[in-house]
Amino acid sequence: MSRVYDRVALIGLGLIASSIFWASKRKDVSVHITGYARSKETRNTARKIGLCDEVFDRLEDAVKDADLVILCVPVGAMEQVMLKIAPFLKAGSTISDVGSVKRAVIDAVEPHLPTDVKFVPAHPLAGTEHSGPESGFASLFDNRWCLLTEHESADKKAQNKVMNFWKGLGANVEFMDADHHDLVLAVTSHAPHLIAYTMVGVADDLGKVTDSEVIKYSAAGFRDFTRIAASDPIMWRDVFLFNKDATLEILGRFTEELFDLQRAIRTGNGDKLLDYFTHTRSVRRGIIEAGQDTDAPNFGRNLEPDVD
Amino acid sequence: MSRVYDRVALIGLGLIASSIFWASKRKDVSVHITGYARSKETRNTARKIGLCDEVFDRLEDAVKDADLVILCVPVGAMEQVMLKIAPFLKAGSTISDVGSVKRAVIDAVEPHLPTDVKFVPAHPLAGTEHSGPESGFASLFDNRWCLLTEHESADKKAQNKVMNFWKGLGANVEFMDADHHDLVLAVTSHAPHLIAYTMVGVADDLGKVTDSEVIKYSAAGFRDFTRIAASDPIMWRDVFLFNKDATLEILGRFTEELFDLQRAIRTGNGDKLLDYFTHTRSVRRGIIEAGQDTDAPNFGRNLEPDVD
Repeated sequence: MSRVYDRVALIGLGLIASSIFWASKRKDVSVHITGYARSKETRNTARKIGLCDEVFDRLEDAVKDADLVILCVPVGAMEQVMLKIAPFLKAGSTISDVGSVKRAVIDAVEPHLPTDVKFVPAHPLAGTEHSGPESGFASLFDNRWCLLTEHESADKKAQNKVMNFWKGLGANVEFMDADHHDLVLAVTSHAPHLIAYTMVGVADDLGKVTDSEVIKYSAAGFRDFTRIAASDPIMWRDVFLFNKDATLEILGRFTEELFDLQRAIRTGNGDKLLDYFTHTRSVRRGIIEAGQDTDAPNFGRNLEPDVD
Repeated sequence: MSRVYDRVALIGLGLIASSIFWASKRKDVSVHITGYARSKETRNTARKIGLCDEVFDRLEDAVKDADLVILCVPVGAMEQVMLKIAPFLKAGSTISDVGSVKRAVIDAVEPHLPTDVKFVPAHPLAGTEHSGPESGFASLFDNRWCLLTEHESADKKAQNKVMNFWKGLGANVEFMDADHHDLVLAVTSHAPHLIAYTMVGVADDLGKVTDSEVIKYSAAGFRDFTRIAASDPIMWRDVFLFNKDATLEILGRFTEELFDLQRAIRTGNGDKLLDYFTHTRSVRRGIIEAGQDTDAPNFGRNLEPDVD
């Protein structure tokens, strides 16, 4: 993959931005990458670990010569950042983002877009439970999807360059309507995260079972939930606030179904439970066949046995 | 660890029994291990892969000379198996099990126990989403907990031998009251499994989002749920039917909490969400510090990047 941009600016230096940087360097997708983070501590860490070719203390310095500016901040901070950078954007440049919600980001960014700047909303479906500038790594996007969403003033040429940029980072790219994106992600990401947060919260707040029991005996299933419930709290607060309707719709369906299964347990309807559990197995098989998860037992966790 | 029993019989040859066999052989915890499975296909597979020193076609032949008989069948099948083997058990031998529910298994087994046979209920908190005779491996129990539960006619000497047997398989052993076990497991295992099954079922049955979209974009969180929702359907049907009260109690608490967070989303109460999500992070840290999960991002999944 050859170079796509001369200068890219990353605004917000967390897991996604740092992974973009390392993935860019691996394949030389951009010549020069600048960075900015609101917190001085984050900027210092970035400088220390060599994250970005240049880290700026001022937002405008980071963006002013960039051909592509990627907003890697929580969804709720997008509009504020856009207002600040709009006057400094280079004519002919492109703005993109990595927000997990797309309609709200489009509504936040588009009204402030200078006429000679294009906006290409993007969402790489990749992440880990770790956050911050030191959590990124070059292979994060390999074989993951990056969804580019359509919107009112979409520009084909700018979209194609952003697509090539993401392919250069290792991702597969697809286009999707913004509202449909928000519904699909409510199913595959937002509702599961809220459910995981809830289960972990409940387990942590039961009088009759102690926290240390929950932790000790977590390998029986619970620990799987704790991974995504350890994701960045600010990012996730914003996801739920800005994808409210779709998330609540899916959670409503979830609760309805959960009540139905609870009734099956209460009434001893074993056939219903067996049918249900047999069917869900096939979804897992589909995901493994699509290369979106490993077939190794327990996700291939490789715990060292105790030596005592 | 030296030998604990001369002859052990495994009834039911799935993931747990096969892992017991391989772990026993690794440390020579028993001289001779016999096996029985109801299905001819399973018995043939076991013979083919060398699972058990001897596989019998008749239940009574497998148990008659055993010093320890371990019931590795679904919780709902325990009583039936116990009724069949009771007349053939050796005087002075011990019965144990690996059921995920303890009160129901005690109620099923104890009434049929010959006077000269001891019962030591056990539950190794270990497993994977795979099942069947070929899914076992020697390290499954390493650094995992095996809970032995107290009951009316508990025998200290028999308990100690079962404890040493499990330590020989690599597990840590702890004693726990049977009813408390069922509540702890409802939190750390049974409720999480039902919730995962439900989430996967919902995602698989939405008109507006296709199954192939769910599968393709599952890496954004959903795929974590599909692992435990791929667990053995019969085993899990029985867990819910036989640990009904504790599971429904925890699910009730879960639903209450989920409604509270849904209301926070609906009313835009970002502070509440942020507090909640910040707190759940610490549970994950506790689990990692306790050696019950890996700190590697994404559980250390090591996906091969696409080469196309």
